[in-house]
Amino acid sequence: MEARAVKWWGWGWEDRTLPVESRPALWRHLQERLELDPAIVRKVVPIDEILPPPCLVSPDEISQLRRIVGEENVSGDDYDRVTHAVGKGYKDLVRLRTGRIERAPDVVVFPEDEDSVRRLLEFARRRVYAVVPFGGGTGVVGGTETPEGFAATIALDLRRMRSVLNVDDHASLVTAEAGIRGPQLEEALDSHGLTLGHFPQSWEFSTLGGWIATRAAGGLSNRYGRIEDLLVGVRLVAPTRTIDVRPLPGRSHGPDLRELILGSEGALGVITQATLRAHPRPSARRFASRLFRSFSEGMAVLQGMARDRALPDMAYLSDEDETRFAAASAGMSLEGGGPIRRRLTNGSLLLMGFEGTRADVSHRRRSAVRHARGSSNIGKRPAERWYAERFELPYLRDSLLDHGVLVDTVETAAPWSSLPSLYEAGKKALQEAMWKDGSRGLVLCHVSHAYTDGASLYYTFLARQRERDMIAQWETIKAAVTRAFVDSGGALSHHHGIGLDHAPYLPQVIGEDGLVVLRALKRELDPDGIMNPGKLVAVSP
Amino acid sequence: MEARAVKWWGWGWEDRTLPVESRPALWRHLQERLELDPAIVRKVVPIDEILPPPCLVSPDEISQLRRIVGEENVSGDDYDRVTHAVGKGYKDLVRLRTGRIERAPDVVVFPEDEDSVRRLLEFARRRVYAVVPFGGGTGVVGGTETPEGFAATIALDLRRMRSVLNVDDHASLVTAEAGIRGPQLEEALDSHGLTLGHFPQSWEFSTLGGWIATRAAGGLSNRYGRIEDLLVGVRLVAPTRTIDVRPLPGRSHGPDLRELILGSEGALGVITQATLRAHPRPSARRFASRLFRSFSEGMAVLQGMARDRALPDMAYLSDEDETRFAAASAGMSLEGGGPIRRRLTNGSLLLMGFEGTRADVSHRRRSAVRHARGSSNIGKRPAERWYAERFELPYLRDSLLDHGVLVDTVETAAPWSSLPSLYEAGKKALQEAMWKDGSRGLVLCHVSHAYTDGASLYYTFLARQRERDMIAQWETIKAAVTRAFVDSGGALSHHHGIGLDHAPYLPQVIGEDGLVVLRALKRELDPDGIMNPGKLVAVSP
Repeated sequence: MEARAVKWWGWGWEDRTLPVESRPALWRHLQERLELDPAIVRKVVPIDEILPPPCLVSPDEISQLRRIVGEENVSGDDYDRVTHAVGKGYKDLVRLRTGRIERAPDVVVFPEDEDSVRRLLEFARRRVYAVVPFGGGTGVVGGTETPEGFAATIALDLRRMRSVLNVDDHASLVTAEAGIRGPQLEEALDSHGLTLGHFPQSWEFSTLGGWIATRAAGGLSNRYGRIEDLLVGVRLVAPTRTIDVRPLPGRSHGPDLRELILGSEGALGVITQATLRAHPRPSARRFASRLFRSFSEGMAVLQGMARDRALPDMAYLSDEDETRFAAASAGMSLEGGGPIRRRLTNGSLLLMGFEGTRADVSHRRRSAVRHARGSSNIGKRPAERWYAERFELPYLRDSLLDHGVLVDTVETAAPWSSLPSLYEAGKKALQEAMWKDGSRGLVLCHVSHAYTDGASLYYTFLARQRERDMIAQWETIKAAVTRAFVDSGGALSHHHGIGLDHAPYLPQVIGEDGLVVLRALKRELDPDGIMNPGKLVAVSP
Repeated sequence: MEARAVKWWGWGWEDRTLPVESRPALWRHLQERLELDPAIVRKVVPIDEILPPPCLVSPDEISQLRRIVGEENVSGDDYDRVTHAVGKGYKDLVRLRTGRIERAPDVVVFPEDEDSVRRLLEFARRRVYAVVPFGGGTGVVGGTETPEGFAATIALDLRRMRSVLNVDDHASLVTAEAGIRGPQLEEALDSHGLTLGHFPQSWEFSTLGGWIATRAAGGLSNRYGRIEDLLVGVRLVAPTRTIDVRPLPGRSHGPDLRELILGSEGALGVITQATLRAHPRPSARRFASRLFRSFSEGMAVLQGMARDRALPDMAYLSDEDETRFAAASAGMSLEGGGPIRRRLTNGSLLLMGFEGTRADVSHRRRSAVRHARGSSNIGKRPAERWYAERFELPYLRDSLLDHGVLVDTVETAAPWSSLPSLYEAGKKALQEAMWKDGSRGLVLCHVSHAYTDGASLYYTFLARQRERDMIAQWETIKAAVTRAFVDSGGALSHHHGIGLDHAPYLPQVIGEDGLVVLRALKRELDPDGIMNPGKLVAVSP
């Protein structure tokens, strides 16, 4: 698909790495905090040693699939089967690195048009084969996991459906096929002086369809909104129906079908194309960074900004532990003197970014900074640097895995009034689960999406990885924190989705009656239950 | 429910009127344009001459209902039955004024709590009686019409469920029962320094539940958003299930159940309570008015404002005919000289309002005005006056009906790129339908809700009312314009909803497959099809 190779065992481009050793202060900080043995090296098994289970699709069926999607667009290669078996969560990477791929799709198809998608679903439906729609494969909640209990599974990779179908300059709308990735979409918009403004950390690799299917939110969502706010039209091809939502700026047409497709996680059908709001490319961009005495002080300031419509377009507020981590990672001096040093080691870092026209950026930057007046100004550099490196940080995970570090992220959201208690509950659950496991552990947290009524919390947790049962170790920690989120009234996920990992908790969040409604929807669109089985909602056919 | 009486035959408070004669220039303008006979007077029949059909609910059942909702909360009075038989659309008012109420609910119940609602639905379900949830009764698309073909119909008036349950000052969230009306909700918020910012023209009379059920939008939606943007939590009691959506600022929990309740029009269940985002009360409010050479010039400016985030909080742009109407109505001189006179008689009026903090209002007013620099400044008065009178104008309709004028409104929305052609199509359809009917007619249009990608169009049409077959006359015109909206790719409704009047067109807009999905939802929540039958989607039990 692209000349530049991607890592099958980790994050991103094969030729790009971010060794933790390149950040000596951070590496020292982690060794000390996690009591790591620097001698430990965890090797990645060679891909040719990973043997997926035997393919259950017959050669005759492969030929039929080729007739549907084209000769070049069907693959039964082990490489393709293995890389379509998982996403990019911690559990996925551990399984890839150790070569334990128990289940994999029997065949991977790469349709080039919507009609092929429709015929593929017919093919699968006749045989009751499972279909797992696959976008960038960057999900972290088990959303593309190969299901159990089906005669066969087809991975339906959308990335060859990647055309920009229309740019309506007048209405600033872009219509594109669902398999397009962030950079290609931005490139097409750029020539029209537009941007989508949707930049999740996976932006280089994730797809339009994936963003919609998981209700993604990008780093500038304070300005441009979540994908829900950008999406005005969308098409879903389901086994029995095609839902085609026309792009309209506002409508009062009863329950919004668009909102049934958003977050549908491939469990209702295949998102084939969408129309989104684009925005004028910003002509100016400015940054500011501040240090607060505490995370709670920072949260109060963020809330004031949200209430008074003075939120920066990017607002990234780290708790005390993440601030220390960030300072170490960025090489900010932890050894210097004075109040800034004290705050770097026991304060809360706020990174702010503003974009738009010059006049607008100045005005809004001034009012945001006014809200933050009780904090220390540490200049624009930290925020600027974070922005420049925002797609780099996931590479660090591979290096940490090499060194035997368990590292993963979880996220939630709540109204401001319950955010502090949710924060504490999540942190406590993570800490205690790691302690019980015998690792001192490290829990970092930040707020990166704020609303008038509340905000998200995004945790990174790191622990010394067990020698064996690495996945069981992770599962215990993940269960503890997810339970804590749900019991504290937080969102089960703010922008990662439900997938397989969160599905058991969904009934508690939306109620058994809410689940029944989702099941009724699934039954209508996918009566045989072949669409991404087990994700989001389970359905008995 | 309230000491102050409301008009059963028309709009609003009984003691408030707005005779067209009080605006002599307007009255002359209308007489001339509509070729009216000023001698015509259409009387309203006395209410005691309106006899609803016999009540089909037995005295024993009435007793049972009293046991469910309380002695005082059940009414079989003709007055209550008649006033719950219709909404406030043109068709409704004509039927009321002429006393032709062919169908009416057999009984009206006023539950005081959610548990009573649940038991009422059980009562109705056992008997397969239709249930029509009723809020302010201000709908204009037949959303509360009594259905045909049921053994009996119960109107479920929510207005005695009107408590504010909680104001979360910290998160600026308010939770209230669904029957609360605009002023009571604002009053509760006011003591917390908050406002909901949702001011549809029906605000004094319509209810929270009604806003949600119809996806309402208020006059300041550019600032505060539509009801969809304000709603974060909601509860729907359906015959078989209760959907309880927890208030969360953002979530990635799959298809959004909140969005199934929004726009559900009583056809899925009864909205009993909701949690909404509130906002700081504005400390400043300013106005500005401008005259453009043409409606299309004004639209281009509005679009630029939306694109550059420079939209006024209220932006009300009238086409040439509405500008003439407004000038006449407000007594602005049509007789003066110079460019302003020319534009008042052949230009496009933009009324702008801004609210918030003083500094913010100044900044945003400046940037909006900068966008409008090609227009004539006609001062703040016209906008200020419109704002002050915004809840008054519906009273004019009653006076026009007294004078034998057919007057109604229709509304739609589209992306900017197709807005001009949609505008022309709607106008042409209305004009031609009125011409065919032998009336010269008058079509006014404005944009009152703008988005980056498009805007709404709101038409008022006036014609000489036929002596008889008044409803058939209206139906022909309404069908012509609705067909034109749908055929031009416009929204079937931007904020009035679907109801009975728009339901036949819904398949064309959301597709037969979209309708099937809505029916599946209805089947799950309301398997006997008793909830507001015929509205939104019809379902065969």
